[in-house]
Order: sequence, then structure tokens, then C-alpha cells
Amino acid sequence: MVRKKLETCFSPALYEADGHRNSIIVVIDVLRASSAIVTAFANGAAAIIPVADIAEAKDYKSRGYLVAAERDGYVLDFADFGNSPFNFTRDKVEGKRIVYSTTNGTGIINLSASACMTVIGSFLNERALSLWLIKQKKDILLFCAGWKNRFNIEDTVCAGAIAEALMASDSFVTICDSTHAAIDLWSLARSDLRGYIEKAAQRTRLRDKNLDDCIDFCLTSDYTDKIPVMKNGILVDNIL
Amino acid sequence: MVRKKLETCFSPALYEADGHRNSIIVVIDVLRASSAIVTAFANGAAAIIPVADIAEAKDYKSRGYLVAAERDGYVLDFADFGNSPFNFTRDKVEGKRIVYSTTNGTGIINLSASACMTVIGSFLNERALSLWLIKQKKDILLFCAGWKNRFNIEDTVCAGAIAEALMASDSFVTICDSTHAAIDLWSLARSDLRGYIEKAAQRTRLRDKNLDDCIDFCLTSDYTDKIPVMKNGILVDNIL
Repeated sequence: MVRKKLETCFSPALYEADGHRNSIIVVIDVLRASSAIVTAFANGAAAIIPVADIAEAKDYKSRGYLVAAERDGYVLDFADFGNSPFNFTRDKVEGKRIVYSTTNGTGIINLSASACMTVIGSFLNERALSLWLIKQKKDILLFCAGWKNRFNIEDTVCAGAIAEALMASDSFVTICDSTHAAIDLWSLARSDLRGYIEKAAQRTRLRDKNLDDCIDFCLTSDYTDKIPVMKNGILVDNIL
Repeated sequence: MVRKKLETCFSPALYEADGHRNSIIVVIDVLRASSAIVTAFANGAAAIIPVADIAEAKDYKSRGYLVAAERDGYVLDFADFGNSPFNFTRDKVEGKRIVYSTTNGTGIINLSASACMTVIGSFLNERALSLWLIKQKKDILLFCAGWKNRFNIEDTVCAGAIAEALMASDSFVTICDSTHAAIDLWSLARSDLRGYIEKAAQRTRLRDKNLDDCIDFCLTSDYTDKIPVMKNGILVDNIL
């Protein structure tokens, strides 16, 4: 059996597009973009349209779309809501196409556009996602969003949880130090994930802005089996 | 007491010069540049002149300098020796000024030139270096060389060993996720460092080129109290 290659990238600044044109890229931004996107699909969203700049998000808003837009954790004034998964309730998002512009996540989704497929990963869909990735006949890159190009703990630990599941399937091989480190950090974090994340800088940033109410939720395992996948520049449910 | 700031950078691609103009930067390239440089000073070298490009190293050679130069682990034909610490024996280097050009380390030393001071760290001088850093009234950046801009395990674990010692002194504070992760990986590695490093990609690369004879040595703690420091573009013993 030819085993598939598993790699992990800790920051957009470390991404090497050339090595991953035939890979599936899993974008992980636990606090909070990928958790919010996965929640939207769990609650019946029809699609999410990622946009990088504010002018484009405003234009969509003027055409009647629901718009989620924030910068540095703050909801932009013209937007319907920001980046907390708690905004994406069923009554608001079911059946809707939502425009989504975030500080970090959108740029990464665009950066990974040259890969053969981009999907969204988080603790919320980690189990379903891992099982699905094991079935695909593709190399995998776990792409941590980080924060302003920096390494972060919460995305790395989530990548470690997924990487551990993939390696346990025996269908992957890795010679990637980042993957080994992510698995090892997950091994330290798993017994008390909430306690482990206390040291994360983003946890402090969110607390300072009173935006940390969703952290427990974002660290929930096995909340949904939804796997958002990018098709023609738009995120949709992968079973569609 | 105002506590000093401790940060860790996992790759030259993640380095932000602006944040570190008043910091001491510790360059860590365990396999093998920083181990070799520290060994040279332990064996009495007078100075090491880092040069980035091969033409410059050749020019120094023609003027009678000892030249260490390698690319991707291989000694260049005009050079006296390459990047193994075993080359820097007392009979060869004592009292000498050595020109040093490596794949990775030299570029990083130049990159960190805008900081207030650059020193060389490795397992070989980790204890003396940590004690010295604790006494300095400066913020510290532990700068892992990585490999071709990628995260690597051996430099990270060494950074973790130094970071743990600094944090234990209670004179530092960190809100840097990379520092927390490095300390945690060190906590997993410390009881069997040699075994832990087995999974490092660089360990495999060195084995494939029969260059792994020096790994045990490079992981030796407390081999020397020498701390190479950059002064006017040249590395010298910090007590000079």
C-alpha cells in the first residue's frame, strides 16, 4: 500500500504552495473562524462566500446578503454579525448564503486555492473530518491559520488531534517535524484541553475584548459531521 | 520588578525584526551550525567570521584564512572543512580566525543584525548561556534556525530547554505561544533527548548523508561555558 503524505503548516508565512498542488488542505482557525464556519453548516447554512476585503463585503450587503465581518475581533458596523460561532444560529442561517470576511481566515482560504481541495477543520468536526480524510486518496496538509502570521497553540493542538487520528489509520506517513510536534502537543493537551488553552495568547486577547464566551464551545469534540469544502470559491457542505 | 519579555521564533520566515531591536537574539541551529560554532570557541578559536555567499568565502580562503563551508551538508571543494563540530578540534582552531559559510546559519545571523545583540545557543552551552541571559537586562528572542524556513524539532526543543531555565528564574514573562510550545516539547524530550530527536527530519537527512556521527555530541548538555557573541559582524567569545 502506498501511504499518503501528511504535513502540517503552522502559519501562512510558512506555506509553500508548490508542494501542495495535489493535496487536500485543511484550514484550521479554532478561535474562531473555522469554528464559526463549521457551526454555520451544522445549523443549515447553504453556503459561505469568503471575501478578503471590506469593500467587497459591503457590496454584498447592499445586494441583500447576510454578512459576517470583523477585524481584530470587532464586528464591522455594516455587518449583520461577527466571528463568534454563537451568531450562526439556525434561525439566522438556515438555507442562507452568507458572506464572510475575517481578519485571518479568508486570506488563508484564498492562499490555499491552488491546492486540489480546501476543507475547513475545527474541534467541532474533527472526528467526522478525520474519518473522511482517511478515505480520500490524497496527501493532506493541515494548515494552521495562526494569528498575524504567528504560530498559535489552539490551531496546532487541533491539527495534532487530526494528525493523530490520520496516523493511527496507518494510511499516512509523515517526515514533517511540525506534524510530530502537533501530535505531541495534542498528547499534552487532550486530558484537559480547556486548561491547556489557558496559556494561548488568543485566549487572553479574546478575554480582554469580552469575546471569550465561545471558547468552551469551540473546543467541543464531535459536535457535527459537517465538512465545509471550497467549490468554485464558495464553501459548501461536502456531501452536496 | 519589571520582568523581561521572552519570545521564540520557529523560522526565519516568521521573524519580525521590528519587535526585537532592543532584544538579545539567541540563534539556535543544533544540527549543526550553532553546535559547531560553540565547539570552535570551546577549543580556543579566536573569532568566527560568518559569510553568506561562496564567493566571499573563497576570497577569504585565497587570503590564508581557515574556511568552513558547506551546502546541504556537503563540504565545498575549496574549504578546509564543513559543518560538523568534530572538525573544529583544538589543534586546528586554537587562536585562529575562521570564516564560516553554511546553508542556514549565516543568513540568520545576518537577519538578526538589527537586534541589540546576537549570541549563539546550543545544547552544548545551554546552562552557561541561560545563566548569562538571566543576568542581562534585556528582552530575549530565541531564534530557531529551522531548515529551509521550516519549523524543526531539534532547535525548538533546545529553545524549550533555555526558555524553561529563563522562566524558572522568575525574571521573565511570556505571552508567546511558540515559547509555551517549545517548553512543552522540551518537557516531553528531556528524559530521552536522543530518542526524541529520532523523529526529526534533519536526523534522517544527516543519516542519509552519513553525517549523523555528531548527533550525540550535539545533544550534550553543559559541555562548555563559552557564549559566542556577534561584535562588528564577527563572532567572538563574550568574555572578550
